[in-house]
Amino acid sequence: MCGTDNDSAAAPAPHPASKANLPSSSPYSQVQDYLSNTQRYQIIESTLREGEQFANAFFTREHKVKIATMLSEFGCQYIELTSPVSSQASYDDCKYICSLGLKAKILTHVRCNMEDAKRAVECGVDGVDLVIGTSSFLREYSHGKSMAMIKQTHVPFPDTSGWHCYTPVPNSRNSKGVEVRFSSEDSFRSDLVDILALYQAVDKAGVNRVGIADTVGGATPRMVYDLVRTLRGVVGCDIECHFHDDTGCSVANAVTALEGGATHVDTSVLGIGERNGITPLGALMARMVVSAPEYTKATFDLPRLKDIEEYVASVVEINIPFNNPVTGFCAFTHKAGIHAKAILANPSTYEIIDPALFGLTRYVNITSRITGWNAVKGRITQLGLDGPGGFETDAQIKEVTAKIKQLADIRPLAIDDADSIIHAYHLQLTGNGKQQETAA
Amino acid sequence: MCGTDNDSAAAPAPHPASKANLPSSSPYSQVQDYLSNTQRYQIIESTLREGEQFANAFFTREHKVKIATMLSEFGCQYIELTSPVSSQASYDDCKYICSLGLKAKILTHVRCNMEDAKRAVECGVDGVDLVIGTSSFLREYSHGKSMAMIKQTHVPFPDTSGWHCYTPVPNSRNSKGVEVRFSSEDSFRSDLVDILALYQAVDKAGVNRVGIADTVGGATPRMVYDLVRTLRGVVGCDIECHFHDDTGCSVANAVTALEGGATHVDTSVLGIGERNGITPLGALMARMVVSAPEYTKATFDLPRLKDIEEYVASVVEINIPFNNPVTGFCAFTHKAGIHAKAILANPSTYEIIDPALFGLTRYVNITSRITGWNAVKGRITQLGLDGPGGFETDAQIKEVTAKIKQLADIRPLAIDDADSIIHAYHLQLTGNGKQQETAA
Repeated sequence: MCGTDNDSAAAPAPHPASKANLPSSSPYSQVQDYLSNTQRYQIIESTLREGEQFANAFFTREHKVKIATMLSEFGCQYIELTSPVSSQASYDDCKYICSLGLKAKILTHVRCNMEDAKRAVECGVDGVDLVIGTSSFLREYSHGKSMAMIKQTHVPFPDTSGWHCYTPVPNSRNSKGVEVRFSSEDSFRSDLVDILALYQAVDKAGVNRVGIADTVGGATPRMVYDLVRTLRGVVGCDIECHFHDDTGCSVANAVTALEGGATHVDTSVLGIGERNGITPLGALMARMVVSAPEYTKATFDLPRLKDIEEYVASVVEINIPFNNPVTGFCAFTHKAGIHAKAILANPSTYEIIDPALFGLTRYVNITSRITGWNAVKGRITQLGLDGPGGFETDAQIKEVTAKIKQLADIRPLAIDDADSIIHAYHLQLTGNGKQQETAA
Repeated sequence: MCGTDNDSAAAPAPHPASKANLPSSSPYSQVQDYLSNTQRYQIIESTLREGEQFANAFFTREHKVKIATMLSEFGCQYIELTSPVSSQASYDDCKYICSLGLKAKILTHVRCNMEDAKRAVECGVDGVDLVIGTSSFLREYSHGKSMAMIKQTHVPFPDTSGWHCYTPVPNSRNSKGVEVRFSSEDSFRSDLVDILALYQAVDKAGVNRVGIADTVGGATPRMVYDLVRTLRGVVGCDIECHFHDDTGCSVANAVTALEGGATHVDTSVLGIGERNGITPLGALMARMVVSAPEYTKATFDLPRLKDIEEYVASVVEINIPFNNPVTGFCAFTHKAGIHAKAILANPSTYEIIDPALFGLTRYVNITSRITGWNAVKGRITQLGLDGPGGFETDAQIKEVTAKIKQLADIRPLAIDDADSIIHAYHLQLTGNGKQQETAA
């Protein structure tokens, strides 16, 4: 492999994809929105809750401890665990992880009732994430409660004198040091007026965060922006967002929610979760290192991402998708001739992310019919076959490129095959050179 | 596997995820935008051009013919091929595919010069997709042309009297029956005023489409909406969009572009292309069957999607990503107890897409610590073990559920393991029944 032309090896100069290099009227140089939290977002990492709902997931305590530790060290501000009422191991493991003293705060996801919340706090969590379905679908087919009943539901709430419902307990935010989040489920198919009224009530009662969940993964970015922006005007507390990926929009919805005023995004490693999962941590990092480079680089230990993904992939027995942002096997591979030419001159021509930020390198593929002579020239330089006695003229390089393209039209080529063609041609050049010397 | 509770087997009733079931003030029930083309979008399928730039791609003629045929039969309106000037096989295969008489129109992607465009038309294509880099990066490091030079570039253009540059040839649209698209490359890092002026000029000259390309994959949906909406006010021709997926936004950007007035979206099967690729055809279908169900179902043969993806995956030697929308192995797998309960009562509680639309089925997983007794009840019914002499009470089902959760806390369970526990308990129940009969 010829993946040696890594920026980090070259010089500590800033990657030229920085905003400073953009024309002033480029659509990338957006005016900063008033509402946007892209420069100060927080991650609620839910591999150990949403991820446990992934078809292949079976986490032992050892897995859970290692995953929680890695995510905390990576810089995730929160780690969410499966409800302790799910099973005995869920309870014991939650308690154990809370005792580890990780830097990240530990949350658990519980149904909206007092018993579940109390069990969670027994385990020593830093916060409880309460959830109730508010769409007509879930009201009818899941818990069977009407909207009027939901509004009267006692949101379990700790204050100095014990647990209370939400209505009579204003100003008790954080009184017991346990954060409380209240989320609707299936928010985008809920009645807007109903959920806004509910969020307003729990905000007044003093919850730390309200949550919006696209439980079925059907929302589009513009729906998300409208809902979050509206909610931002209704509540004073933080806003958390949870996006499923059924229609491929989970990453875009997350960044758009932050632009609309959301403060926290739920992720899981590789996006594992119910069905095809939620916003993947790695893809969100790819997005945010472009949208908020300084904050993202300062807050998250990006070069650890690949190890975390590989560990979780091995535990749940999946392959990292070939097209995964950043860590997919070809995320920084360049193949077309016109791309390769430009990337060799300046990587940011065809890269919005510097692979070195994630401890990775780029690779220029020259083994196809669509390669070009500039790409082959780069390879010749890497092999040290340019200069006097070797490839001296562009005409020579164009000729060897034609030979590579000819063979690549017939069968798939490995880099060895292309190198062989280059070496054979080079031998001919030096052979000719020697013959000329002899003749002279 | 227990994937037998398929809607298609049940009844031809409409999937309840239809808009009719949404509350009138749900954020999903959007007012139709004036600009939006989501109900009449067209696909430019680029597996045989962008996809050939994928690291693993080596397409023989047989592959190309089969892929083009499948995509045409699927309903894609356009199929884009690699430039005929790339290699001899590219030329020959382009000519051959044009001769097949497929329903889809055949396009090829060529550099913005007369020679390339003429070679393309020689092959018999229905249209040429011209491209030139307009960002400062590409101007400096790729083709080396200034913006002033680009504006004077002769856009190759067929009319009744031959090929012309764009400026002096108004009203020649389609005069030779060859569609012409003119696209900038790296549009989002180009100067807005420059590219708008350029698009306006080529529109006046009579191109059929202008193209916007997020070549580095860094755009967000709100940037896309702003740029497309602005462009919609500047040109009268169609607008094509091309989104790379480096930051995970390619599907969301595509639907947002359609909302802003774009007419055509570039896709490739599984998104294969340079680096980690572009908007995947399948993920876009998942998105559009939600955003524009009637048009999408009427226009595309959705049950063929899985075969197309599997064929392309086998040709380029990749696995279909575990988290692929629709066709990922767990896209319709439900695991958490509260999800499974609701899904058994009404699938659309936790599904925005009816799997039967794609010829697929759902699967409710009961083999984990987070399962619930309603999910187990569903399995018992599938196994025919409910009713007199078998599982008769909820208490019995709750007891066997507790046994399953207990074992699932200790080790990963297969469906066989869960079934064994259910059968053992059932045997005990019927054994007890027989004992009681004997005693009576």
